[in-house]
Amino acid sequence: MTPIKVAFAQTNPVVGDLRGNLSDIRSAIASASGDADVVVFGELALSGYPLGDLSYRSDVIDASARALNELVLMTGEPELSGVYVVVGHVSKAQGPKHPMQASAAIAHNSASVIKGGKLIGTYHKQILPNFDVFDDWRNFVPGESELIFEINGTKCAVAICQDIWTEDSSRSVALSNDGVELLLVLNGSPYTRNKAVERRQAARDFQNGFALAYSNLAGGQDELVFDGGSFLLDASGTEVLRAGMEPGLYWEQNEKLEPVKSNDLATLWQVLVIGLRDYCAKTGQTKALLGLSGGIDSALSAAIACEALGNKNVVGIALPSRYSSEHSVEDAYALAKNLDIEIRQVPIDRAHQAFETMVELSQLASENLQARIRAVTLMAISNSEGHLLLTTGNKSEIAVGYSTMYGDSAGGFAPIKDVFKTDVWALARWVNSVHESAVIPVSSIEKPPSAELRPDQLDSDSLPDYQLLDEILKLLIEKSATIPETEALGFDVSEVVRIEAMVRNSEWKRSQGAIGTKTTEVSFGTGRRVPLTTRFTNYED
Amino acid sequence: MTPIKVAFAQTNPVVGDLRGNLSDIRSAIASASGDADVVVFGELALSGYPLGDLSYRSDVIDASARALNELVLMTGEPELSGVYVVVGHVSKAQGPKHPMQASAAIAHNSASVIKGGKLIGTYHKQILPNFDVFDDWRNFVPGESELIFEINGTKCAVAICQDIWTEDSSRSVALSNDGVELLLVLNGSPYTRNKAVERRQAARDFQNGFALAYSNLAGGQDELVFDGGSFLLDASGTEVLRAGMEPGLYWEQNEKLEPVKSNDLATLWQVLVIGLRDYCAKTGQTKALLGLSGGIDSALSAAIACEALGNKNVVGIALPSRYSSEHSVEDAYALAKNLDIEIRQVPIDRAHQAFETMVELSQLASENLQARIRAVTLMAISNSEGHLLLTTGNKSEIAVGYSTMYGDSAGGFAPIKDVFKTDVWALARWVNSVHESAVIPVSSIEKPPSAELRPDQLDSDSLPDYQLLDEILKLLIEKSATIPETEALGFDVSEVVRIEAMVRNSEWKRSQGAIGTKTTEVSFGTGRRVPLTTRFTNYED
Repeated sequence: MTPIKVAFAQTNPVVGDLRGNLSDIRSAIASASGDADVVVFGELALSGYPLGDLSYRSDVIDASARALNELVLMTGEPELSGVYVVVGHVSKAQGPKHPMQASAAIAHNSASVIKGGKLIGTYHKQILPNFDVFDDWRNFVPGESELIFEINGTKCAVAICQDIWTEDSSRSVALSNDGVELLLVLNGSPYTRNKAVERRQAARDFQNGFALAYSNLAGGQDELVFDGGSFLLDASGTEVLRAGMEPGLYWEQNEKLEPVKSNDLATLWQVLVIGLRDYCAKTGQTKALLGLSGGIDSALSAAIACEALGNKNVVGIALPSRYSSEHSVEDAYALAKNLDIEIRQVPIDRAHQAFETMVELSQLASENLQARIRAVTLMAISNSEGHLLLTTGNKSEIAVGYSTMYGDSAGGFAPIKDVFKTDVWALARWVNSVHESAVIPVSSIEKPPSAELRPDQLDSDSLPDYQLLDEILKLLIEKSATIPETEALGFDVSEVVRIEAMVRNSEWKRSQGAIGTKTTEVSFGTGRRVPLTTRFTNYED
Repeated sequence: MTPIKVAFAQTNPVVGDLRGNLSDIRSAIASASGDADVVVFGELALSGYPLGDLSYRSDVIDASARALNELVLMTGEPELSGVYVVVGHVSKAQGPKHPMQASAAIAHNSASVIKGGKLIGTYHKQILPNFDVFDDWRNFVPGESELIFEINGTKCAVAICQDIWTEDSSRSVALSNDGVELLLVLNGSPYTRNKAVERRQAARDFQNGFALAYSNLAGGQDELVFDGGSFLLDASGTEVLRAGMEPGLYWEQNEKLEPVKSNDLATLWQVLVIGLRDYCAKTGQTKALLGLSGGIDSALSAAIACEALGNKNVVGIALPSRYSSEHSVEDAYALAKNLDIEIRQVPIDRAHQAFETMVELSQLASENLQARIRAVTLMAISNSEGHLLLTTGNKSEIAVGYSTMYGDSAGGFAPIKDVFKTDVWALARWVNSVHESAVIPVSSIEKPPSAELRPDQLDSDSLPDYQLLDEILKLLIEKSATIPETEALGFDVSEVVRIEAMVRNSEWKRSQGAIGTKTTEVSFGTGRRVPLTTRFTNYED
């Protein structure tokens, strides 16, 4: 058993919305007060996370300080005073920066402990991650001190996220020597496919005779989905409480602790839904629009949009060209019927013909033209009616640049940009498997992928089989594999070299890509930073 | 006087092109050998800088090591053996990471000293910048040791870039105590308007009785332009040698040291030319295309393109709509004549009419439609004929989102994206002032700015005067000014609040923006990292 009763408050903060975030925090405290001993929030739950370069703004820091003061006062109210509160917020750094730190940071990433109208103490994050999407060393000044305090006779300490992802055991030994019985860890830990397993591993590796309460944020923030899943480990490392993925207060022991799932399609689906749902909610958008090609990518994206926004808020547009197959429009209409969404048909040939009289077109230009006419049409509807345009490219095609700039890549959000094509198929089959009848038309799943920009075109004309392509892409992008390493694994060198060049040469396209939910360790978002201009070919001698 | 004769080799490396970079390095050594005592290159001159996340790739690191070995061997050749060489390169980190460093870094940012076929020693950068465009703390493991060695009786040490931008004097005192007479500093320092002055200040602040040789890279790399300008300070801080902006070997004392210029239009112009020139050169592109509206932005961009690529490689397209004024096309043709570039006219009304029959359009949608038809037309020509499409938006309009997504914002490079509108005018007048007759039509400079997407539209319908707008934008973006701070400076609060909201609400547009040359301290590129989703209004109470 753990020493005291811990409640996890998984709020879904909006960056900078101190008023709204504070209101959510207040509600959670009111629910936990008098029942739990302590309620633990996620990292920067008051300010929002990640703040990015807003962390440099004195008005953001000052407003956070005022909101924290307000929160401290609130907890003096009878209905909020019956529980210890541990909440994350940004705070102004007082001392000099770390001597190794050449950054513009002026604030700490902090957590305060509050009870009954009193601020007991404030802790500052010590290990500041600086990899993938994390810019904490850029944005924050590291802390140096422990905050050790008692809750109803139990000695507690605080850590924030990366603090516990370390091979250095000196801190956990010191905490143990200081008699700490429970470590409260505030996290802003975004979903990736295997993260839930890794979090438990990191927490257990850091434990040293003390219990550990791992509290995570929930909800989507730009490209990240914080997938909640807070958990409580007793001093032996046994998991005794596990929270769900969604925002909420979790504090009673769950009835049943199922094994933590990795690479789970149901979880991935829910993450994609949350990513789109919260991007819309936090930017004040309620309706989405997308082109329906009859293909699998737009079908899956439409299904995600329906779950995120409601089927009445999703509009599909079929935009057949002279090269569209009959089944394309049929499949689009079948999908719309299954999802019960509005669908309209806007054939693009009139604009196609107009452009043909305006400019002379090469074969490539003529193909791209169709995708761009579709984008112009969709953006015109979006501008007129106020929908968010979704772009439906998957990770495999984005990786190799198999898309038209300002054509099918146009849109304000890309729901499946970090889902490989093989996973798109798997997700589509999974969606159908959990519904009584097929949601995504079987022919959309089973037909050979095609951009349909010229007669009888197939993706396989220019790309390898997606199963093979995805294996190679995972090695090149997530593992930074070298060509000899892929060769040692049995891949054909010439094919890997060709794909590596496609990835490199489409860097400029991705630099203009729409934001979309991160699901893998290396997504094409702010976490991958490579030059557009490079001649390194992975094959240097 | 400085103790020994220093040559600065300002090479223009391509990231990852070890073969090409090594060849440039060899040429510089051959020129300096036998005459100068030491030839100093820029930061990572062998590997290219910034490498970004390529620094995680073992093949990049290994290839750099092989290239360095090759270079060491080369310097054993008689024609290369007569000079000490100090060259920057990436190298594999051997020891553990810094305990504060939570990054994926596996390499150092290094500099090696080489002479006559022997590697004398390797230094690793100690202070790793993590602000603006710099991700060194993310990408590299910091070094801890000095490299002190003698060149013809003079005691020398090595530093790299950020190492000398510090208020901590302990290192410079230690170097002085060790008897160092000359510090060789390798830099990858990109241009911003006032940087030349700041570099000298930093160098003099770091000096402690030793001379200092500040060597910079030259040329454009993605959004950055390394503007050379290497300089040599004697032990008293007096500048005794100053290099030019362009690639080359600089080692004789210049005839005359003019004051270092800040905010100089001639320098800004040259930086914009280099940025576009090298982006094209390094991505293998030779021809540029742009829409000519008759306005000042496209006119200045065309002039830059001519200087960067040659007038025979620049094509302008006039794309009049039903709302274009007569003078628009006239001014476009006048510009083309002045620049002696090819111009074509493609009226867009046929496509405009076609789309009008396809979709119902709101006023806003109808305006944006025209900009998008132009983009489709330009991209069709680009795809057919192989030009790089330039997008010609300036910083002021990009800041407030005064552009059409997938319309005028479409393009592979944005030459003036980091130039405020008031500076666009100043540059245009400057260009005309240095030519015998006007290059940019005077009417393009003097007419009131208009997007011409509806009858009698003017920018001033929705934006304040550009002089005022630019002042407010500089405060909000470069100074992170709060609303009360702008009010204290005499600005109208309601106007600042309105502009701040426009900046915040167009973050998503900028996230899909084309790359372009950085010229200011805070440009809309990789150096500015703010959430798309935030509700902080700069006015929280």
